[in-house]
Amino acid sequence: MSSKKGLLIVISGPSGVGKTTLRQKLLIKYPEMNYAVSVTTRRPRKSEVNGHDYVFVCMEKFKKDIKKGVFAEWAKVGENLYGTSRIFIENAINSGSDVLLDIDVQGAAQLRKLYHEKGVFVFIKPPSFDTLRSRLNLRKTDSEQEINARLTLAKKEIKECNNYNYTLVNKDIDKTLEDLYCIINSEKHNKMN
Amino acid sequence: MSSKKGLLIVISGPSGVGKTTLRQKLLIKYPEMNYAVSVTTRRPRKSEVNGHDYVFVCMEKFKKDIKKGVFAEWAKVGENLYGTSRIFIENAINSGSDVLLDIDVQGAAQLRKLYHEKGVFVFIKPPSFDTLRSRLNLRKTDSEQEINARLTLAKKEIKECNNYNYTLVNKDIDKTLEDLYCIINSEKHNKMN
Repeated sequence: MSSKKGLLIVISGPSGVGKTTLRQKLLIKYPEMNYAVSVTTRRPRKSEVNGHDYVFVCMEKFKKDIKKGVFAEWAKVGENLYGTSRIFIENAINSGSDVLLDIDVQGAAQLRKLYHEKGVFVFIKPPSFDTLRSRLNLRKTDSEQEINARLTLAKKEIKECNNYNYTLVNKDIDKTLEDLYCIINSEKHNKMN
Repeated sequence: MSSKKGLLIVISGPSGVGKTTLRQKLLIKYPEMNYAVSVTTRRPRKSEVNGHDYVFVCMEKFKKDIKKGVFAEWAKVGENLYGTSRIFIENAINSGSDVLLDIDVQGAAQLRKLYHEKGVFVFIKPPSFDTLRSRLNLRKTDSEQEINARLTLAKKEIKECNNYNYTLVNKDIDKTLEDLYCIINSEKHNKMN
């Protein structure tokens, strides 16, 4: 057995850019990858399953866990809190397993501070703001006002892509998936890892 | 048209490790890649075509070209000299085309000095020395003595793999090809390029 550490792959980008689809497809293509399920205080959407899509908790529990240092990152997005378990990430990596995180740009910035040298940070960009707006509209989960707020935030977030190791423009999901797979595969052969 | 520079991909490793096969297969999979044909003073093998596999020149011409600064790298391997045109590489990269080089370890070390930040250096390792010996035997181009000299050199060369950006163990040519393709693809999305 190799004593090599696992890779920490962080995909991030604006809301609606396709992170969830990308993550789901990657986990099918790459079943040995561990997905770090986010903890959130937001309400589940219709199709979402607790513990699979997110761990859904109440605001009180989340705030207690922040104080206990449970989270490798946490962020407020709109009215809701989102976080990722620090122990989950570190146990997986130290035992040689790869971990995938799919998080918002604020969360990724915190992870970069904590896992600067260890993580592979991939920014997912929309081909255009019009595409992003269409995708948010299609999702039918947000009000017009929420969509406008997300788009305003997206403009700020996209400026941060230079802080990431890689940037992928998500024009075609299968091509983006192939590119992401290539990044993970090549990082495994990178002498720095 | 993008003003982005092309990538310089340098594959290197011991003689017999499979660099030529890898390069040939990569160029089929990736026809827009330019191959920097090496210049050499050695005699063509039966199947080799001048200008395609190598540019074959006499010792006198090669030595004049060294003095003129024609080569980005050159090296003596056994009794023969091998080199790569500097202008070819730089014209291609500056015009946004990718360039592939398939060269010996000495040549790669010189290129690293010249194109340290610009190049992607990939070391191809044999799965074992026994495999390397079998491949050199199968090639039927070298005497027993030459094969032993190549293996002795290979042991030294393999120690240099840490100076490369990536290392691939060439156990299965199709897997190695996929890995190499992934490296090139992901480097295109790397924010440093």
